[in-house]
Amino acid sequence: MSEQTRERIRAVAAELSYVPSEIGRSLSTRATRRIGVVAADLTNPFFPELVEPLREDLDRNGYRTLLITDHEQNPVEIGRLADGSLDGVVLTTTLLGSSLPEELSTRGIPYVIVNRDVDDIDADTCVVDNRRGALEVAEYLAGLGHCRIAAIFGPADTSTGRDREAGFRAGLASSRVDLPGTFVRTGAFAHATGRRATLELLALPQPPTAVFCGNDVIAMGACSAAIAAGLRVPADLSIVGFDDIPMSAWDIIDLTTVHTGIQTMAHIAVSFLLRRIKEPSTPVQRVVLRPRLVLRGTHGSPASPRQAEAGTRQGTVNPR
Amino acid sequence: MSEQTRERIRAVAAELSYVPSEIGRSLSTRATRRIGVVAADLTNPFFPELVEPLREDLDRNGYRTLLITDHEQNPVEIGRLADGSLDGVVLTTTLLGSSLPEELSTRGIPYVIVNRDVDDIDADTCVVDNRRGALEVAEYLAGLGHCRIAAIFGPADTSTGRDREAGFRAGLASSRVDLPGTFVRTGAFAHATGRRATLELLALPQPPTAVFCGNDVIAMGACSAAIAAGLRVPADLSIVGFDDIPMSAWDIIDLTTVHTGIQTMAHIAVSFLLRRIKEPSTPVQRVVLRPRLVLRGTHGSPASPRQAEAGTRQGTVNPR
Repeated sequence: MSEQTRERIRAVAAELSYVPSEIGRSLSTRATRRIGVVAADLTNPFFPELVEPLREDLDRNGYRTLLITDHEQNPVEIGRLADGSLDGVVLTTTLLGSSLPEELSTRGIPYVIVNRDVDDIDADTCVVDNRRGALEVAEYLAGLGHCRIAAIFGPADTSTGRDREAGFRAGLASSRVDLPGTFVRTGAFAHATGRRATLELLALPQPPTAVFCGNDVIAMGACSAAIAAGLRVPADLSIVGFDDIPMSAWDIIDLTTVHTGIQTMAHIAVSFLLRRIKEPSTPVQRVVLRPRLVLRGTHGSPASPRQAEAGTRQGTVNPR
Repeated sequence: MSEQTRERIRAVAAELSYVPSEIGRSLSTRATRRIGVVAADLTNPFFPELVEPLREDLDRNGYRTLLITDHEQNPVEIGRLADGSLDGVVLTTTLLGSSLPEELSTRGIPYVIVNRDVDDIDADTCVVDNRRGALEVAEYLAGLGHCRIAAIFGPADTSTGRDREAGFRAGLASSRVDLPGTFVRTGAFAHATGRRATLELLALPQPPTAVFCGNDVIAMGACSAAIAAGLRVPADLSIVGFDDIPMSAWDIIDLTTVHTGIQTMAHIAVSFLLRRIKEPSTPVQRVVLRPRLVLRGTHGSPASPRQAEAGTRQGTVNPR
């Protein structure tokens, strides 16, 4: 084709507002330059904080992000991921029993697991050491002198829910603090979970002086319950979360929590995936980040029994 | 093709883990069953609250959502929307000067504008009456007796920023309350905007007794600043937001704000878009929802000058 012909085609294309067909281009190159990011409900503020750096990193590397939301009532099917429209997949919220990782492996589709781990799968993975983070919280609360410590765990079918529970139980055991069944609640990673569970815990004849929560949003729900019950945090009730989403550092929330390094997880996950796309036979890589306890304003030593009673009975007015 | 042949093809396809190629299917039907939802930074909690019901509604109607994020440094190009991979587009965060709506119209791509309006475009649109909502806040604060009222507006290149500012100014004017230049701040719809601006306002020789914020997240930043400055909300400072995102109802936030009906906006937008895809020549539809003031815990009457001074000077300890 002569340069003159090329020039004429360009001029006519511009005149007709022509945009190259993505579909036509995919057929000729086989690469779609699209990555599917599978995430649960975006209104849980954890996920935007994970999806956003994933998207930025992928964008920087010339990939578009197709965000695929995965709901319990409407789970993602392998067909959505394996229809030829994606060069790779990032799994952010995989349930422990999910068949997606194996199905992706079977079909040879490059993918990476981030945030929520999956058992018995040999795949590129970047997670945080959830067990260790929760264990440190348990030992820290016990060290402050709390001996009535409750827990509101996340779903047991997620590695984050399961491993944080295991770590917390181990930490209490090593500190010789009991965790009676009446002090344990489980629920979705949501504000409503923490609020409802904490109101139940506070209604017990001997309520806890501290509550560990499966993630930050559950912990914010626990803080809401304390306010609704007329208690002061942390004077009457210590509350600790997990994840350290940016909101947790806001002065109005000021949550003591476990920093998981969400951005770092995203960066590592993207680098693993891009490598896998380029060199499909590269050895599987697995990173487990070390979490870090962040001490902010929602924890303290337990009040003496007399103080605690006064706080509960008088129903301290919501200080706001 | 005989039923027997069909059956054999199905059996072989199942054995090979075959999934129909999305690309091949698009070429034969021309429909991709994909809708692009264009939204700004997802870490602003407003957008997940809008994107999630959009996605649910589209899903229910057999469409997948391709979430396309639009950043000021990296704006969406028409080529991303007009490459043949989308049946339609939802614009959620369009800037006032954006050329996207006109470019979509020119190319005959079905689209709908939601949340942020665009001037001089004849397109299906669903927004809330931002001017009216802000006007009602101004009149309400003035009616409580506030006469030193500050404002932290959102970006002037968004209809939400511009119209809320116009309405608020009109409401103060009709209430005969001045809005001096020193009491006006502008910034991104972000917690950091509200926090920084409020700390500046509180440092003025005559600080305001009330602050209207361009959206809820800015208002949460204002609440954070009040806590950082040792003030009580609302005793020392009234704070009002805009949007009524679900977080605003949490006990720990309990924000007085303007309810915009995010879910309703999403439902209407999807119904407009699906109609446009089905009947391209259907008349343009435009809905402007009526907002509603939601009175929660962050507003009150202004303290008497003596009380206000005491509050400021003594630096009331953060009650949490």
